[in-house]
Amino acid sequence: MKDKQSERDLRGVRVNKVGVKGLCFPIVVRDLAHKTQNTVATVAMLVDLPHHFKGTHMSRFVEVLNEHGRVIHVENIPNILHEMRRRLAAEYAHLQIEFPYFVEKKAPVTRATGMMNYTATFLASTVNDDMDFVLGISVPITTLCPCSKAISARGAHNQRGLVNLQVRSNTTIWIEELIRIVEQSSSSELYSLLKREDEKHVTEHAYDHPVFVEDLVRNVAVRLRQDRRVLWYRIEAENFESIHNHSAYAMVESPPDFKHRRNARKKPDRTPDDGAAG
Amino acid sequence: MKDKQSERDLRGVRVNKVGVKGLCFPIVVRDLAHKTQNTVATVAMLVDLPHHFKGTHMSRFVEVLNEHGRVIHVENIPNILHEMRRRLAAEYAHLQIEFPYFVEKKAPVTRATGMMNYTATFLASTVNDDMDFVLGISVPITTLCPCSKAISARGAHNQRGLVNLQVRSNTTIWIEELIRIVEQSSSSELYSLLKREDEKHVTEHAYDHPVFVEDLVRNVAVRLRQDRRVLWYRIEAENFESIHNHSAYAMVESPPDFKHRRNARKKPDRTPDDGAAG
Amino acid sequence: MKDKQSERDLRGVRVNKVGVKGLCFPIVVRDLAHKTQNTVATVAMLVDLPHHFKGTHMSRFVEVLNEHGRVIHVENIPNILHEMRRRLAAEYAHLQIEFPYFVEKKAPVTRATGMMNYTATFLASTVNDDMDFVLGISVPITTLCPCSKAISARGAHNQRGLVNLQVRSNTTIWIEELIRIVEQSSSSELYSLLKREDEKHVTEHAYDHPVFVEDLVRNVAVRLRQDRRVLWYRIEAENFESIHNHSAYAMVESPPDFKHRRNARKKPDRTPDDGAAG
Amino acid sequence: MKDKQSERDLRGVRVNKVGVKGLCFPIVVRDLAHKTQNTVATVAMLVDLPHHFKGTHMSRFVEVLNEHGRVIHVENIPNILHEMRRRLAAEYAHLQIEFPYFVEKKAPVTRATGMMNYTATFLASTVNDDMDFVLGISVPITTLCPCSKAISARGAHNQRGLVNLQVRSNTTIWIEELIRIVEQSSSSELYSLLKREDEKHVTEHAYDHPVFVEDLVRNVAVRLRQDRRVLWYRIEAENFESIHNHSAYAMVESPPDFKHRRNARKKPDRTPDDGAAG
Repeated sequence: MKDKQSERDLRGVRVNKVGVKGLCFPIVVRDLAHKTQNTVATVAMLVDLPHHFKGTHMSRFVEVLNEHGRVIHVENIPNILHEMRRRLAAEYAHLQIEFPYFVEKKAPVTRATGMMNYTATFLASTVNDDMDFVLGISVPITTLCPCSKAISARGAHNQRGLVNLQVRSNTTIWIEELIRIVEQSSSSELYSLLKREDEKHVTEHAYDHPVFVEDLVRNVAVRLRQDRRVLWYRIEAENFESIHNHSAYAMVESPPDFKHRRNARKKPDRTPDDGAAG
Repeated sequence: MKDKQSERDLRGVRVNKVGVKGLCFPIVVRDLAHKTQNTVATVAMLVDLPHHFKGTHMSRFVEVLNEHGRVIHVENIPNILHEMRRRLAAEYAHLQIEFPYFVEKKAPVTRATGMMNYTATFLASTVNDDMDFVLGISVPITTLCPCSKAISARGAHNQRGLVNLQVRSNTTIWIEELIRIVEQSSSSELYSLLKREDEKHVTEHAYDHPVFVEDLVRNVAVRLRQDRRVLWYRIEAENFESIHNHSAYAMVESPPDFKHRRNARKKPDRTPDDGAAG
Repeated sequence: MKDKQSERDLRGVRVNKVGVKGLCFPIVVRDLAHKTQNTVATVAMLVDLPHHFKGTHMSRFVEVLNEHGRVIHVENIPNILHEMRRRLAAEYAHLQIEFPYFVEKKAPVTRATGMMNYTATFLASTVNDDMDFVLGISVPITTLCPCSKAISARGAHNQRGLVNLQVRSNTTIWIEELIRIVEQSSSSELYSLLKREDEKHVTEHAYDHPVFVEDLVRNVAVRLRQDRRVLWYRIEAENFESIHNHSAYAMVESPPDFKHRRNARKKPDRTPDDGAAG
Repeated sequence: MKDKQSERDLRGVRVNKVGVKGLCFPIVVRDLAHKTQNTVATVAMLVDLPHHFKGTHMSRFVEVLNEHGRVIHVENIPNILHEMRRRLAAEYAHLQIEFPYFVEKKAPVTRATGMMNYTATFLASTVNDDMDFVLGISVPITTLCPCSKAISARGAHNQRGLVNLQVRSNTTIWIEELIRIVEQSSSSELYSLLKREDEKHVTEHAYDHPVFVEDLVRNVAVRLRQDRRVLWYRIEAENFESIHNHSAYAMVESPPDFKHRRNARKKPDRTPDDGAAG
């Protein structure tokens, strides 16, 4: 039976990335509270293709995923990437896993418990044996407009917003830690279950903590700068404006020399204040 | 060349609806202010298929649409439906056209002008020569929570919501008229352009007009009941809650005997109060 | 603390449906092969609201869901509906649960195993103590065009299609059973993992079993008519045409007197042939 | 009235991008055939925000867009960017415009005419007075699998795919030109209207021109390398596999030194063959 994919290609074009995308797969991830949680992932698996091969072998991506089993966490992702490179004779391998992630949360006054859902992403790639790992999390929050509050005799427009945060770090950071950083940077965190006393608390707390979309990304940036594990960050925020039919958007990325300064800080002769100055 | 579609089918199953869907097409629609506006429609065209035919002829739907030209309004839709039935030898024909619809709107204080976008839908179907026509419009609005306002010392959570309204009427109703009815039923209408003075006005107006999602659909229902052109309505509202990661939803449909009462009201011996009782 | 929702409403408008929508929640469902599977649901919970109440109590929906626990199956849904009606003092309750559903599937020749994903839906509502339950399943399949095959010297255009099937039945039908019915009605079923031998088989099988979108819905209808458990069905198919940028669509619903004929068939004096005649 | 946005910020964080997103706006663009076409755009407008300002002024983005008028083409985009920088006191300005774009297309045999729709994107940004302009186009096409054809006794699986192409150039390239390049690189282009003779032609043409997703991006790359106007390209292709429920994906980007080689070629002492070698 012919193997078209292995035929020689003469166009002289290396394909940067090739593979499967939109694969739906049940997985188990580790969480801070319960050790593991079951969820459903959307997976992309990509490798490079040297210019002299006609095609990659798509079925092998799925085989690698199947053989790995359903438990996926940062520690065993290098194995998947290694297998992808080996089975597909590739230099470069990339794995992208996106999944709903649940955290049990207590309402602020009544302590009534509900499940909050977030979207988490693992972006892992490797060239040779160095793995680049980016942890991503999308956190819905409330934003209350400082301008609207300042100029209005009563009330202030507020809305649901969404923060997409991506982080590279020098050691494990839990998804829950990133969620906390984002929620603390907003006017209010969201809940699936709020009784009347909680709703009063949440309303007043948001009114007392107004943030522009610019404040939101900056508040997150300041917190990440203070966390010595973080080597790189990208923070996007989008407000689904309650008074407009479009969004307000802001993005902050760590400065180009951030990782360098970060590593410099580890030296004992630097003072902690230094870090706070960003 | 074989005509598979015209072959005899023996399964004895009439197909209720068959045709094309997701056709993207530039159209011109009439509006109240400028007479016409250019927009882009997503079109579905469906007919029934008697049990004895194997298939319909999909290309003829597109031919009917092309031959009709780009100007589409309520008055010429019967021609399209008639052509669909003729060319496809069908009893039933259905046309669905969805498009962004723009209204120039002035900010409430500065009168600064901006374009607001809505989504409009024409749903037309015919059996023999009676056309059933439903006009649909999706209107984004602000809702401010009456409970949050009542129980909180300051502020009130609010958010963008979306109202989907569908109406059957005994004479033409303009899209702009339905938009006004929905916007007046909400805490505040939306704008694409608001200066600071406008933002103050909008914030305070929303605070002074709190509505639950239930109030919103009821306010629209009360207004539609008072409009003697309306024979049937369905009102859905969804609030993208600023304090939750889920939506609040409400739906009201006109009572089963609504059209009948409506027609009865046209008689001079009925009092207007009667209508208010709904 | 004020209870705005319980205030008296004077507009005289009963709200047909009100509640929460888009709630994301981890659930456990029963399957034919492994007894249970973990997945993630999107949930809507709705009740009616009598004309004299201003609002429903949104937090109680989430409480009912939380208290129920994560295992959801047809047998325990009446409890959820009953609790919704009790806690919200409603006559009508409606629960809608949509979730990815996984089936382990073997490739047709090599028997290599992969996970196939589908989307399942439970639609349950109750007025008083009668529950109406609709089981829905979305099944992606291949369709190969009979016309293209008949007129072309070689090849035939084919594409991914999607069948949305909804069924009411007089006893439990497994999700897997509905999936099989749809897959057997198509040109070919889909797989997540196919080796070269399998791809040859699938290609030839699809070429040998061409179906129009009309054939697909009719094939499913014929199979459902022969299944005595089925009391009502609605079958929609959409082909994402490989030669067009729009879809071909067909829909068949069971005839109005279908349930009646169905029940009549249970009597011993009816012959099986009767059923085949539809 | 307070101007919160102009307050001094002390966090020391420069915001890379801030502005409005998801603005829906009717526009007029120039096309090759009819000079202009009316369509509907989704717009994002972003600037940078120095670390010492608390916020940007969101309403000014919409004012700039409104004042510009509806006709948008490559030549007048620098004016919009200039106004954004001036009105918002920014160094950097970014404009993103995405819109459906229509091309009238004749069927290959009968010459029947239909409208084909594509999605075009203008990505323009400026720092000081240099504008960076990227033209993007999404082109749906047919791909027929070379492996499936080679190993099967009859037929070959094929499907709709989508190519996203982005190009930087040293002079104007028409949207229609990029569309042609992509369509010629595929198994077959798509049509909105095909009669039976056309369907036979399209089916056989696709069967005679099988392409993997890797072939598709390479074919486009080879054509772009031969076009001396092109300074940079990024080509993504996704096949909505007819035999799987996931996609096959490939991406090629121009090599890092591509622009340099490109400019070198303009010198008269280089031979044209050089270009073909890539």
